[in-house]
Amino acid sequence: MNVMLKADTPLYLGIDGGGSKCRVVIVSADQHVLGEGLSGPANPLRGMKIATDSILAATQQALTCAGLPFNDMSRLIAGAGLAGVNIPQYYQQVKDWQHPFKAMHLTSDLHIACMGAHQGEDGAVIIVGTGSCGLASVNGQLTEVGGHGFPYGDNGSGAWFGMQMLHKVLLSLDKLAAPTLMTDLLLNELALTDTLALVSHFMHATPTTYARFAPLVFSAAEAGDATAMQLVEQGAAFISAIAQRLLSVGPPKLSFIGGLAPKLLPYLPQHIQQQVTPAQQTPELGAVWFARQQDKTRSFAISS
Amino acid sequence: MNVMLKADTPLYLGIDGGGSKCRVVIVSADQHVLGEGLSGPANPLRGMKIATDSILAATQQALTCAGLPFNDMSRLIAGAGLAGVNIPQYYQQVKDWQHPFKAMHLTSDLHIACMGAHQGEDGAVIIVGTGSCGLASVNGQLTEVGGHGFPYGDNGSGAWFGMQMLHKVLLSLDKLAAPTLMTDLLLNELALTDTLALVSHFMHATPTTYARFAPLVFSAAEAGDATAMQLVEQGAAFISAIAQRLLSVGPPKLSFIGGLAPKLLPYLPQHIQQQVTPAQQTPELGAVWFARQQDKTRSFAISS
Repeated sequence: MNVMLKADTPLYLGIDGGGSKCRVVIVSADQHVLGEGLSGPANPLRGMKIATDSILAATQQALTCAGLPFNDMSRLIAGAGLAGVNIPQYYQQVKDWQHPFKAMHLTSDLHIACMGAHQGEDGAVIIVGTGSCGLASVNGQLTEVGGHGFPYGDNGSGAWFGMQMLHKVLLSLDKLAAPTLMTDLLLNELALTDTLALVSHFMHATPTTYARFAPLVFSAAEAGDATAMQLVEQGAAFISAIAQRLLSVGPPKLSFIGGLAPKLLPYLPQHIQQQVTPAQQTPELGAVWFARQQDKTRSFAISS
Repeated sequence: MNVMLKADTPLYLGIDGGGSKCRVVIVSADQHVLGEGLSGPANPLRGMKIATDSILAATQQALTCAGLPFNDMSRLIAGAGLAGVNIPQYYQQVKDWQHPFKAMHLTSDLHIACMGAHQGEDGAVIIVGTGSCGLASVNGQLTEVGGHGFPYGDNGSGAWFGMQMLHKVLLSLDKLAAPTLMTDLLLNELALTDTLALVSHFMHATPTTYARFAPLVFSAAEAGDATAMQLVEQGAAFISAIAQRLLSVGPPKLSFIGGLAPKLLPYLPQHIQQQVTPAQQTPELGAVWFARQQDKTRSFAISS
């Protein structure tokens, strides 16, 4: 991937920092991807040291991949979309970081996902993975909906589906609700046979643990299980409500991303499905769009 | 409370060990309460050291209160009802404990609550506090329903109500649901004004944190708030289902205990309310009933 780069050419670094991994990409001024890097969590909620270590490790990987010396870190104009920076104290902690880049423009992971999906143009995005949330960007105005965390928020997400399944399975095992196919599917998947073992397995479960079992709800629903179908409809209703809310501010496009999105899309109302377009680019490339946009704004501001 | 006690008279110790505190009582063979003690958590899930330290501290307090020397610990025939011992590994850990008592008979906190409520006789009990669960004891057969932990179980409990309230408030703040009075009540209670501060407050919330706010749901419902009324009906339906299930095995009596029970009772169906009788004695006195019963069984077994 090595290319001839004049020392005064801008180089962009796009950072997508999530709760479990950090993806970065280095892009040239003429929009060629020069290198990529991947490392661990870069969510400041997990601690600034872990987050900044992850960002630096992934960036060094991307520089190596691009055939650039580590010294070139100081040439990079970074766009960083990090989970958790919607909370002011974490935003400030990252802002205060003595980063090694030429500049760093900071926003949320949701914002760069939206910029990537629509190549920096207006649009909306809904993420349905372990968590769920949505954002619309219209005329420079951001509208953020959902998210907020688990178990009180992230409705219709993988964690939500997994937890609801366990809830329904336990009601059924207690004979407080009708039998459901999800009981067999879940016990089989875990190679367990009784309630106590099941409860012990989930006693200290994280959202990721729950999310891992979300596909079983869809399997059971597809096999005609009434309780599972009810859950899928309930989850789809939460996601539809987010979509409706975002569409109400007039984004020209709407994309769905995240591991559970393909499973959930067919259950959304037709009029929403018809407005969905595939995401054009990854969130880390969205972070590059963000860096370009912010850098331009700042340059204008400086020269005016 | 000091009384003349012959050294060969049996002395009973009742232990109610929960997730936040341990209550004990010392009772004479002729059923006089001689002393009481109170200490910290005695749930083996929190660690055996903490649990056994709590039990010993409360017992020493009760001995002092009864005017008995610490040496008399070895005279005590203990009945212990501990949270968490329905899980086999924790039951075994407590069983393996080299306790200083003459004997120790172990069961769940739910079982001793039921024995206390009905003075050792057949009956059923539903606990609606931070968590929720129920047990019926009929002809020596125990039927246990609900519980299982939060957030997937403990339906209709204080933790469930608090978490559901936060869920509804966030949906409303995101304009995904109609406004609810609970938003004002919750923000006022916390002296907060916005979504982010609210989410930050509950980010690492325990069941106890959620349960603290459960009464606000009832306040809002009583003021006619539709969303809160819906939650109260949903929570009451969970508890009614537990009651129905327990009544189906034919207990002659049903009692409700726990902090949320008085709030929830008026919302249960009439035919359930009509069968509810007040609990006769505390869970720690239930533990004494259990110790007597088990000790008698064992004596029979030995002499036969």
